[in-house]
Amino acid sequence: MLREDVTEAIRAAVFEELAAVGFARMSIEGIARRAGVGKTAVYRRWKSKLSLVLDLLTAFAVKGLPAPATGSLHGDVRALLEVASHALRHPVASQVIPDLLVEAARHPEIAETVRATLLDGQRGVVAQVVRAAVDRGELPEGADADRALDLIVGPLYWRLVVVRDGAPTAAYLDDLTTAAVAGLRALA
Amino acid sequence: MLREDVTEAIRAAVFEELAAVGFARMSIEGIARRAGVGKTAVYRRWKSKLSLVLDLLTAFAVKGLPAPATGSLHGDVRALLEVASHALRHPVASQVIPDLLVEAARHPEIAETVRATLLDGQRGVVAQVVRAAVDRGELPEGADADRALDLIVGPLYWRLVVVRDGAPTAAYLDDLTTAAVAGLRALA
Repeated sequence: MLREDVTEAIRAAVFEELAAVGFARMSIEGIARRAGVGKTAVYRRWKSKLSLVLDLLTAFAVKGLPAPATGSLHGDVRALLEVASHALRHPVASQVIPDLLVEAARHPEIAETVRATLLDGQRGVVAQVVRAAVDRGELPEGADADRALDLIVGPLYWRLVVVRDGAPTAAYLDDLTTAAVAGLRALA
Repeated sequence: MLREDVTEAIRAAVFEELAAVGFARMSIEGIARRAGVGKTAVYRRWKSKLSLVLDLLTAFAVKGLPAPATGSLHGDVRALLEVASHALRHPVASQVIPDLLVEAARHPEIAETVRATLLDGQRGVVAQVVRAAVDRGELPEGADADRALDLIVGPLYWRLVVVRDGAPTAAYLDDLTTAAVAGLRALA
């Protein structure tokens, strides 16, 4: 394999190992075996499984994600929930992210990286949606983007990752949209 | 130690081990050491760490929890959020539950037990609050208790367990109450 191909094979193997066994049980040996490379090929690139995971997370950074621009707060929130419901059904979100959140309490580096790569990107997108709604007069000046993130993403995350009762229907996403928009207006 | 004291010492040790190292890394050896008993004392009572954890979870069942009855939907939701914000800052919720939710994807028995002991209890309390609001005419007949659970608990869980930026202020809980009530009314 070319050097770059080895790197990519290792990254793919880390991802599969994380989803299959979780951070706590994952080993460099298991990653090397799954990638079809020797342990030294892994250690030449990353000093530990922690640095491997942090590198992988950074590659998933959602910075620069375009914000929806449907022309209404309701349309924008519905579009965000559509994207989020797909993302939360992906193995990264449904298995790897909750696992890393648990590890984050024991490893401050993981907590910081999760925050920087995942939460900051989402917060930026929601801030743009709120800004556009303020500009259109749908929300008052000073509407809080952090509250908006909690109200938009929170119920869906809870249902998909905690309660885990299957894929959300379009009607469910419509309901969450209606509720989030009503909630945001009520806080104004 | 008396037989019952040994059982209680083991249960306490399981809880501490779960919070400290997580389900994946937890071992019967570590539990026995922390409890100050021999490994056979553990194996005599439970056949595996999985059965130990299921037993511990069942003991935490919230069934029969009284629903708040403040006389208004806003008051009841605010009371639920107060209780939930305390519960979610307890190590069981902030560390053990998310860890077990991750394991639940690999162990169906854990998924079923988490659902039966934790979610069903919460759902029952929220259903009572919704029922009382319908009886008072604050929500229309047919208001959905599952949606209500998502809208009330979801944003707080997301903020406290995922974003993890510290204890919620009273003003934050007031905002979530206002938003959840507005959302529930908008769905009617």
